[in-house]
Amino acid sequence: MSRSINLAVIPGDGIGQEVVSEGLKILSAVLPQDVKLETKEYDFGARRYHATGETLTDADLDALKRHDAILLGAIGDPSVPSGVLERGFLLKLRFAFDHHVNLRPSKLLPGVATPLAGQPQIDFVVVREGTEGPYTGNGGTIRKGTEHEVATEVSVNTAYGVERVVRDAFARAQARPRKKLTLVHKNNVLAFAGHLWTNVFNKVAQEFPEVTTDYIHVDAATIYLVTDPGRFDVIVTDNLFGDIITDLAAAVSGGIGVAASGNINPSGAFPSMFEPVHGSAPDIAGQGKADPTATVLSVALLLRHLGYAGEADRIEAAVAADLTERASLGARSTAQIGDALAARVAG
Amino acid sequence: MSRSINLAVIPGDGIGQEVVSEGLKILSAVLPQDVKLETKEYDFGARRYHATGETLTDADLDALKRHDAILLGAIGDPSVPSGVLERGFLLKLRFAFDHHVNLRPSKLLPGVATPLAGQPQIDFVVVREGTEGPYTGNGGTIRKGTEHEVATEVSVNTAYGVERVVRDAFARAQARPRKKLTLVHKNNVLAFAGHLWTNVFNKVAQEFPEVTTDYIHVDAATIYLVTDPGRFDVIVTDNLFGDIITDLAAAVSGGIGVAASGNINPSGAFPSMFEPVHGSAPDIAGQGKADPTATVLSVALLLRHLGYAGEADRIEAAVAADLTERASLGARSTAQIGDALAARVAG
Ligand SMILES: CC(C)[C@H](C(=O)O)[C@@H](O)C(=O)O
Ligand SMILES: CC(C)[C@H](C(=O)O)[C@@H](O)C(=O)O
Repeated sequence: MSRSINLAVIPGDGIGQEVVSEGLKILSAVLPQDVKLETKEYDFGARRYHATGETLTDADLDALKRHDAILLGAIGDPSVPSGVLERGFLLKLRFAFDHHVNLRPSKLLPGVATPLAGQPQIDFVVVREGTEGPYTGNGGTIRKGTEHEVATEVSVNTAYGVERVVRDAFARAQARPRKKLTLVHKNNVLAFAGHLWTNVFNKVAQEFPEVTTDYIHVDAATIYLVTDPGRFDVIVTDNLFGDIITDLAAAVSGGIGVAASGNINPSGAFPSMFEPVHGSAPDIAGQGKADPTATVLSVALLLRHLGYAGEADRIEAAVAADLTERASLGARSTAQIGDALAARVAG
Repeated sequence: MSRSINLAVIPGDGIGQEVVSEGLKILSAVLPQDVKLETKEYDFGARRYHATGETLTDADLDALKRHDAILLGAIGDPSVPSGVLERGFLLKLRFAFDHHVNLRPSKLLPGVATPLAGQPQIDFVVVREGTEGPYTGNGGTIRKGTEHEVATEVSVNTAYGVERVVRDAFARAQARPRKKLTLVHKNNVLAFAGHLWTNVFNKVAQEFPEVTTDYIHVDAATIYLVTDPGRFDVIVTDNLFGDIITDLAAAVSGGIGVAASGNINPSGAFPSMFEPVHGSAPDIAGQGKADPTATVLSVALLLRHLGYAGEADRIEAAVAADLTERASLGARSTAQIGDALAARVAG
């Protein structure tokens, strides 16, 4: 059987190029000989925006659609007004390709620095809804710029959208040793959306009798993330709450330098996109200082999504080994970390 | 000159009664002889709800309106469906009395336990908007309970509402030694509300040239709260973001056992309400195990609001002294902590 991966590569801005190069290095090193890897690079981000004023066109979406998956570095540059690339590229792509499962694992490895005292056990996955909630761009402004301005943001939640992501999260919880799923919301205040989420969650729970369930308000969840992160196994939550708690989760479990994410369309109707949680960090771009680990772990998520579970395991093991030794290794460049990881996965 | 404080006292549910008793003990101990303290207790919460089905009537609001301020213990009981007392009492009161400045200080005192490594310096105040954003109850549900259900939540933001709370926050920043104000929002995604907040913030900033300003997305703010909380002096933010980050702020700066809050109407048109950030903790209610410190610190906020700054300072100093010695004091009951604090403020 001959296998192939046809990958769209979007280095993006700032440190994006550097970390993506290392991600591809590890990808090549881990893949078996018989897997044909094809990559095509796209110039989305600040460069494209300044050159053409475009962020992501219909033609771009058509081209991206033909790939098996997308690897993204980082998008965002101080030269572009805040929000333009975020909404015009990142969110546009998530919505166009219906990336409704935004997967963000958090695992604190032994020896890795955390701001928390006492090096707690942390090993959970957040399943963040990716195509609804307050991220739909619904809302508007009247009397803009006047003292009578009114601006609204509408969180849109559908049974269809909530149920598919909740079911995905239950399946992930079912497949893990602890089999525990926590719904994070604010159903005591956001009662319309909260009722829908809670109801759907309880309904789907009946299909997964082995999974223990739990509900926590988003404000309380931030407390547990710093006082008792070990209580979490899988978390399912709405788009905005997921945005907030996954940054906090990344911070407590080794920092955004090691936080990976997948924007997944489980149906396969569109390619899924994998990217580090961190941004483009323009202040350290081009200096070989960026940590490529989050991108490398995103490559592992990508491989697992495409069915290469063994290869994903090998990358994760290599990263774990590298991270646990890191404190004793001294400063290394982006490429040196990449080389070390490539050597580990190859050998 | 004869002075008086006419206080509404709402013990509420769970540990509410216990902590409020201690709060009143310290209030009596700290007030000068010439200040006449009158208190009237109200039975809001689960008791009232079960007895009458009511949470807060128009007649109740009329009665509460006649007081100078309100001291609340905690509201919420497992016997009442989630959301009923939160929306029917707590939020209803905040909206009815236009408590638009929700004030939540975070200060980590030497020797106080924090989940963060390295005992960082933490001393900031969050000014959370209290009457707008996603808390307005706007939104709705169609096709409820079916697979085609759609539920919306509308965040409502007005120039009037944003400007008054932003101005309040600038004035608070101006009065502090570091004079720094950080706006926390998510203006790259929630562009309608984000634009309004950012614009108003920048406009009001011109009236406060001595105040250094800063903007951070809410997701990144949760990272800084655990990696570099010392960077914050005053934060101003929307109702929901404020709800989330103040729980996290409480967690890192000594826990919700010591987190105080004020629901303030700076115009004085309605009485302001002061309450601990913690809930009713029914699991430890009636056992004398609750820490009254958050309530006592809320009494200090109340006194400062009513113009008794010296008395507020004395309470805060007493709490600081008590907390720094706490590790060596062993277990104390709710009343023992209250007695110790009362002795300190009296002496
Ligand atoms: C850049 C921004 C649009 C994005 C989000 O809010 O989802 C980012 O914070 C993330 O978490 O991927
Ligand atoms: C109980 C709830 C309505 C309330 C809120 O969300 O504001 C609480 O979490 C708080 O922070 O005071």
